[in-house]
Amino acid sequence: MTQFFNAKDTVVLEALDGFLRGAGGRIARLDGYPHIKVAVRADWDRSKVAIVSGGGSGHEPAHAGFVGQGMLTAAVCGDVFASPSVDAVLAAILTVTGKAGCLLIVKNYTGDRLNFGLAAERARTFGLSVNMVIVDDDVALPDLPQARGVAGTLFVHKIAGALAEAGEPLEAVTAAARRTIDGVISIGMSLDTCTIPGSPKHDRIAPGFAELGLGIHGEAGAEQVAFETARQAMEMVIGRLSPRLKPGPYVALLNNLGGATQLEMSVLAEELARSPIADQIRFMVGPAAMMTSLDMQGFSLSLMPLTKEAETALQAKVAPWAWPGLFPFGKVEVMALPDGLTPIQPMPSAHPERRALLRSCCDILIAAEGDLNGLDARAGDGDTGTTLATAARALAAALDRLPLADLTQLYRAIGMELSQTMGGSSGVLLAIFFTAAGDASAGGKDWIAALKAGLDRIRQVGGAEPGDRTMIDALVPALEALPDGVAAAATAARAGADATGGMRKAKAGRASYISEDRLNGVNDPGAEAVARLLEKLRDAHGVGAAAE
Amino acid sequence: MTQFFNAKDTVVLEALDGFLRGAGGRIARLDGYPHIKVAVRADWDRSKVAIVSGGGSGHEPAHAGFVGQGMLTAAVCGDVFASPSVDAVLAAILTVTGKAGCLLIVKNYTGDRLNFGLAAERARTFGLSVNMVIVDDDVALPDLPQARGVAGTLFVHKIAGALAEAGEPLEAVTAAARRTIDGVISIGMSLDTCTIPGSPKHDRIAPGFAELGLGIHGEAGAEQVAFETARQAMEMVIGRLSPRLKPGPYVALLNNLGGATQLEMSVLAEELARSPIADQIRFMVGPAAMMTSLDMQGFSLSLMPLTKEAETALQAKVAPWAWPGLFPFGKVEVMALPDGLTPIQPMPSAHPERRALLRSCCDILIAAEGDLNGLDARAGDGDTGTTLATAARALAAALDRLPLADLTQLYRAIGMELSQTMGGSSGVLLAIFFTAAGDASAGGKDWIAALKAGLDRIRQVGGAEPGDRTMIDALVPALEALPDGVAAAATAARAGADATGGMRKAKAGRASYISEDRLNGVNDPGAEAVARLLEKLRDAHGVGAAAE
Repeated sequence: MTQFFNAKDTVVLEALDGFLRGAGGRIARLDGYPHIKVAVRADWDRSKVAIVSGGGSGHEPAHAGFVGQGMLTAAVCGDVFASPSVDAVLAAILTVTGKAGCLLIVKNYTGDRLNFGLAAERARTFGLSVNMVIVDDDVALPDLPQARGVAGTLFVHKIAGALAEAGEPLEAVTAAARRTIDGVISIGMSLDTCTIPGSPKHDRIAPGFAELGLGIHGEAGAEQVAFETARQAMEMVIGRLSPRLKPGPYVALLNNLGGATQLEMSVLAEELARSPIADQIRFMVGPAAMMTSLDMQGFSLSLMPLTKEAETALQAKVAPWAWPGLFPFGKVEVMALPDGLTPIQPMPSAHPERRALLRSCCDILIAAEGDLNGLDARAGDGDTGTTLATAARALAAALDRLPLADLTQLYRAIGMELSQTMGGSSGVLLAIFFTAAGDASAGGKDWIAALKAGLDRIRQVGGAEPGDRTMIDALVPALEALPDGVAAAATAARAGADATGGMRKAKAGRASYISEDRLNGVNDPGAEAVARLLEKLRDAHGVGAAAE
Repeated sequence: MTQFFNAKDTVVLEALDGFLRGAGGRIARLDGYPHIKVAVRADWDRSKVAIVSGGGSGHEPAHAGFVGQGMLTAAVCGDVFASPSVDAVLAAILTVTGKAGCLLIVKNYTGDRLNFGLAAERARTFGLSVNMVIVDDDVALPDLPQARGVAGTLFVHKIAGALAEAGEPLEAVTAAARRTIDGVISIGMSLDTCTIPGSPKHDRIAPGFAELGLGIHGEAGAEQVAFETARQAMEMVIGRLSPRLKPGPYVALLNNLGGATQLEMSVLAEELARSPIADQIRFMVGPAAMMTSLDMQGFSLSLMPLTKEAETALQAKVAPWAWPGLFPFGKVEVMALPDGLTPIQPMPSAHPERRALLRSCCDILIAAEGDLNGLDARAGDGDTGTTLATAARALAAALDRLPLADLTQLYRAIGMELSQTMGGSSGVLLAIFFTAAGDASAGGKDWIAALKAGLDRIRQVGGAEPGDRTMIDALVPALEALPDGVAAAATAARAGADATGGMRKAKAGRASYISEDRLNGVNDPGAEAVARLLEKLRDAHGVGAAAE
């Protein structure tokens, strides 16, 4: 087993029960396991036309996923890719059909036609009104007189379901289903085959090729074609459909055959919107997985002429979640970017002491470049010193345009400078630190309290706590001690930085990926930078603490 | 490219546009391509708390698929598995945030924390109220201090979205989001890795193994485990979650990581329902693809404690289709099979002439066994004669219990006998023929008109028309001529059967798979059987035509 199954023989039974487990009682099944696997609306009172569909399993959410108000009354599930038995279909019909009658929607495969067909005959012997329509929307094999039924079947389910729900009589529902079938065309394309439970996967499609004209039962596509891009894939698919289009508006249904990612399906939707037939497509259903072929990495496109009847019926609300709804197709709504993304440069202003302090800080960090790189080389990638020195050089060069006289604006401006000049996580973290400090300062906090607010923010955003072997280990004690002056802060920072040398396990930042042995005795370079900065400021006779 | 993309660099741009094409104008994007990829509610008036989430792409439908009334106000999309930039997040915040403020819901990855964090700081400098919560629901790596955010994030989106939609203030919405995050736990399991656009796929998982403790960015799982069945897979996943469960009811979210089939997901849901923790699970979200990792063939299970607040918020209606809804979990509703599946045996009755006619027909077909097999050997699998003879022997043996005196019941009874004794498509087709004839007879048609009604039905159900080289080619002219007597019918049937020998291409039935050359000059064995039957009846002096 390379799939989440238990055993080949129980897949469909367990999957149907599993589906019903989450259906919240809205859908029941008949008590006919293992041969009769029928999902049926639990709230059905037989007062309206019943809509019954089904076929082999492996097409989920079809068909049980479409059972519910406004779509199918019952779904008859065969084994994987195998038609259900006459008895199973008959059980479904007898369960749901009242005086209003029943419409069977059958995909054009011999087994389904025959089993549903005989079940219909049997049901008629009970005096029930049973009609049957056969969906043959596939255009992949134009020479095949019996075109297959594929994802276009969803249009039939939805339209017949809506009319039945609206109380239309059986003949009207049947006629609408036939009109839908007459109009709908589909074709599929795939980059890979599907994996049938219990069978090995046949890698039939060569790399660089796709199959065009896919059925939904793992059979080979009508032809193998060279595959290049999503655009070319959509062009090929549309190339088979567009000669059959009549003038006038259409509805598209873009179906995931199972294994395509939603990213791919959306790219295909975009290519449809850029295609020559885009103007004809007024509404879209999907992209979504509706009629799948197990895990096949492919898609199908179905198109049907848009009539007022179809639009109303397709738009009607339904209970089954698997129906993705009908929405106008084509336009990308684009909104202008908001103001404020390009920050307004604050007015420069003078404040000689702050300028000198900042200048000192920059010089200290520039001088420490080599030492800090050396520490980082033992615990990280050896660039902490350079990262800080580069930012310091940029900040030093920007001193003349900083709003030095306004502390709130200054903090914010430093944050902005650092986020623009300092790479990596550290740049963003320091930018958050200073921007949050500015925000706190604007809120009336004094300069130390503002820095503490910045520290709180980077602890929240970065997720590092004291003891995690980061810059925080020096910053926290330093800011605690700062009210007592720079010397006290320097002493506290040094103790904090040295403590990181004894921390065996880094819990945040890049050093968290390094083995404990290599970290032993090496100070964290960020914490060391903080301690070094404060020590040097203290040595330069306490500049700053007194300045505010 | 082995995926439906055009180029690695444009995947996310095209996919987002493609998604918006089908959104019917409900969702717009900001005019910031290629760097700023933000999906935003087009109907947003900033009167309530805005809910913004996002992160790397490749998790579709997260996050753009959850934009809409009742969930996200905006989604910020990075490149595949890469955090969006500060500017992109800021653009989203500035676009949607009014006086009520904004909540950022961020999954716990360094890049997302930092970029969303700094954007939040920048937004605050504009005087906006911006809160941020960090989701860390993954329990795969208990030693990792920074647990990852995975599919449990959906609970946060939904609950915060519902409260915001209800007009709750920012602090209340934030507090509810934090409570949700505190409670939710998740773990994932996969049988295969994912395919990153433009990169070769790494087949890191050996056959017979699975990865337990999956992230959603293609990183290796916490451990490789031997994989046996869906049951064992669910047991392993639950084994990691259940030690963390508190007493009391829970909500489960069963997430498709992208490449699992819906059949597999439903089997997993069934295993969850059979598991020891099933009693604690009151509600289910999914199974559905909500937080995917591209095409990863895996699933994740998220569990959160059920509170009244959570139940109400999770049940609130939302616009985004990708949210599958919240439904009571656990019970499979089973309905009794309807009456009528075991057909009531009709009362036997006597009618010597009909009995003789039927006996003759059976004898003729039994005698023709070898000849018909010979014809079929040249165009099919050589068993037509045996199939018909077997059915004829069974019918002959059943003559005493047939309702010979009641033509309506007799037709139906023959149909029933044939469907039970004759294998393959022919058995079903003849059963349909006689059952429909019985139905028409019950409706007042005479015996020939009833047989014609049977013929019409098998033409509809079987899809074969005259000229398709089937039994129909003899039956249609024979029934046309039957009002003129058996001799006329026999002549017409013979002409029809012989004509099939000149038909180069079979359009229905098994012979449609045979090359034209092999068919040349060989009568279709089914048509030949009809002709042979009528000729022999004629030779036995027109039994039957006169009898009615």
